Amino acid sequence: MSQQDQLSNLETLSAALEVGELQQLRFMLNKGLKPVEVAHLLEKTPPRERQILWNLLNKDLEGEVLQYLGDEAQAEILSRMEASEVLAITESLETDDMADILQQLPERVMKELLKIMDRENRERVEQVLSFPEDTAGGLMNTDTVTIRPDITAETVLRYLRRHKEIPETTDTLFVVSRKGSYIGVLPLTRLLTTDPDVLVREIMNTDVDAIPADMPDEEVARLFEQLDLISAPVTNEEGQLLGRITIDDVVDVIREDADHSLMSMAGLDEDEDTFAPIMKTTRRRAVWLGINLITAFIASAVIGLFEETIDKVVALAVLMPIVASMGGIAGSQTLTLVIRGQALGHVERSNIGWLFNRELVVGLLNGLLWALVVAAVAVVWFQDMTVGVIIALAIVINLIAGAMAGTMLPMILKSLGIDPALAGSVLLTTITDVIGFFAFLGLATLFFA
Amino acid sequence: MSQQDQLSNLETLSAALEVGELQQLRFMLNKGLKPVEVAHLLEKTPPRERQILWNLLNKDLEGEVLQYLGDEAQAEILSRMEASEVLAITESLETDDMADILQQLPERVMKELLKIMDRENRERVEQVLSFPEDTAGGLMNTDTVTIRPDITAETVLRYLRRHKEIPETTDTLFVVSRKGSYIGVLPLTRLLTTDPDVLVREIMNTDVDAIPADMPDEEVARLFEQLDLISAPVTNEEGQLLGRITIDDVVDVIREDADHSLMSMAGLDEDEDTFAPIMKTTRRRAVWLGINLITAFIASAVIGLFEETIDKVVALAVLMPIVASMGGIAGSQTLTLVIRGQALGHVERSNIGWLFNRELVVGLLNGLLWALVVAAVAVVWFQDMTVGVIIALAIVINLIAGAMAGTMLPMILKSLGIDPALAGSVLLTTITDVIGFFAFLGLATLFFA
Repeated sequence: MSQQDQLSNLETLSAALEVGELQQLRFMLNKGLKPVEVAHLLEKTPPRERQILWNLLNKDLEGEVLQYLGDEAQAEILSRMEASEVLAITESLETDDMADILQQLPERVMKELLKIMDRENRERVEQVLSFPEDTAGGLMNTDTVTIRPDITAETVLRYLRRHKEIPETTDTLFVVSRKGSYIGVLPLTRLLTTDPDVLVREIMNTDVDAIPADMPDEEVARLFEQLDLISAPVTNEEGQLLGRITIDDVVDVIREDADHSLMSMAGLDEDEDTFAPIMKTTRRRAVWLGINLITAFIASAVIGLFEETIDKVVALAVLMPIVASMGGIAGSQTLTLVIRGQALGHVERSNIGWLFNRELVVGLLNGLLWALVVAAVAVVWFQDMTVGVIIALAIVINLIAGAMAGTMLPMILKSLGIDPALAGSVLLTTITDVIGFFAFLGLATLFFA
Repeated sequence: MSQQDQLSNLETLSAALEVGELQQLRFMLNKGLKPVEVAHLLEKTPPRERQILWNLLNKDLEGEVLQYLGDEAQAEILSRMEASEVLAITESLETDDMADILQQLPERVMKELLKIMDRENRERVEQVLSFPEDTAGGLMNTDTVTIRPDITAETVLRYLRRHKEIPETTDTLFVVSRKGSYIGVLPLTRLLTTDPDVLVREIMNTDVDAIPADMPDEEVARLFEQLDLISAPVTNEEGQLLGRITIDDVVDVIREDADHSLMSMAGLDEDEDTFAPIMKTTRRRAVWLGINLITAFIASAVIGLFEETIDKVVALAVLMPIVASMGGIAGSQTLTLVIRGQALGHVERSNIGWLFNRELVVGLLNGLLWALVVAAVAVVWFQDMTVGVIIALAIVINLIAGAMAGTMLPMILKSLGIDPALAGSVLLTTITDVIGFFAFLGLATLFFA
């Protein structure tokens, strides 16, 4: 179903909700749309309507739909369910998808749920849950198809044919030893083009390194991106095959990973539900505004130091935001570049020196260029040569400060274990505001004293 | 090779470059690392060293390495090559990867290159090039394995075995009619588990819609994400199969798509080479600073209107940045949320109304909360009740303005065909600066007149 169709879906929906044509809606949700499309529809529906839609959904589709929702939307819907209900709707999902959903449950409900699960399922889920959500172990599925190295391709083909179904997105079989140690992979494409009498050992690929279960998920994503993988084996410390990671789960990591920097820089969470309710949104935003208010007060305090000077030359009050703003913009550019570079693995200790020098020179050159322009405008505007000289100097100083802070802040924050995307922009603007106001008003005090 | 190893690679490299141990370097580049790892290493190397490394690379690896580089890094290296050289190193690549590289060439070199290509290759490349880079046609590969619906699984298996190799990442075969029209897909996993005598027609999957060649690449990416696809057929308007898109190419789109908002909001390009040379960087950044300078001047002009008032009450100059800053922060949060929502397809005309109302209420509530805090601090600081009342009112006004601008700007810009991520933040801060200064100083003029 195309995007255009989905758009009109949403409009039909709003109309149907208004006139109460529930029968038609129920049909659309349960027959007309795929579960992933229902999830997409729920994601773009405000809370009240979302609840109505959810109630119209058949029980047997709820689990499927739930797995496609964002973390926050999942948690909201799950918060109204009993453990037995959650179990009923998630039982048929793949292990990793089920574990993902369970992780959104309150501690109490999750424990209860694990208690009422059958043993085999519980053990599988607990194995996945034993790894943090953001590691290879938390991403993996345990539905691997494994073969031994000393059988023929013909035997493999016969073995597969005995299965009624092999898991979707199986592109390779995993070759393991008698003890379950991972040895290599046999791509289906290779199996299909080979002579039936050849041994697995002779055609398997041992180049594909297994992923340790404790590898962070961003690193897994980078491996998949770099090596164009579709699936990869996951092993424990002893080299035993635990499961496999498939590209569809990695795509979610890549999307979230990339969204993370964007959202964090505005103090938002990458899992944020666009249509979260008012009070929840207000509370979360309030925290960010409060933090930023502290930095704004610090900047004000700096200005406060120079009240007398401003009282003498009121033009300073008119021009001072320009200095702070230019430093902030230049610094943000550097900051964003470095944060993105860190996320891609391009920026690290060994090459930050070159980057620092380049940013410094770029800051200096752009500082000189725009200082001249601003000075010229200021001189014409206020008919005062001194003001022009002061603002020019201040802009050069602040652009250099912005470049230095923009390069070093993410490196320092990262080494302290603080997320640069979250804390970087607040700290950066504090620095450029303080240095900008201090340089401009301080120089003015010297000149006009 | 793990991330840690790569880090020490870069350090070894720097050391080797300094003492000139080229022999060792040459070995590492051509034998020790995979092409994708060499590309990653080049991406994180400053220009001069990057050139040295590139020259040490064997000719036969250049094409492989080139395809893994970002657009900008590719273009830089290609700019020093003749058409015949480019042809020599790209000839062995897949059609879509070759087309991607050719698109980085200057018009003149590309035309020359197409002239000296052999006919078959030229036709294939020209077919991919005939679609814009950012559409399904530009992403696709023409290396599909196609079968007819009226043959048995056994025949398919024999047919595949006659191939020495089928393309990597083939997870499904495409079923086409005698005239080449796309009918359905046959997943390899299905083929392997089925009875050999069954007809393709009976086991093929006709649920998978073909992707029209002119579908924008972000929409392709969304389809792959939603439907967990590994590959998908691409057809022309007549429904004829043109090629297939594989997940590894889509992953790049997802990464770039997500990076786009982050980088654009700082006036950067998502293809930006982190280690671009000084002059290139300076020139690009200068444009963004210039645009932002205009908005800073507009804000200054607003302050200028109230010079007399500031002259009377200098405390206003100290406090005014707080009003502008709080509005800017609140507005940026809304803006980022809406831009991300647009990119994910969650925000559209039919639900923007709800979002607008929520943001308005959130802005009002947070405005009231922080207005009280700021007013209290201002009253204590300046021992002036009136200043407290003025700043409280101005903050409420500006937070509401930020919420309104943050919601509506991206919608308006998008409908005008302007990229909201690029223009949104500049316009937003212009609005919150102007309204913030105007409200605060305007109210002050009324009160203190």
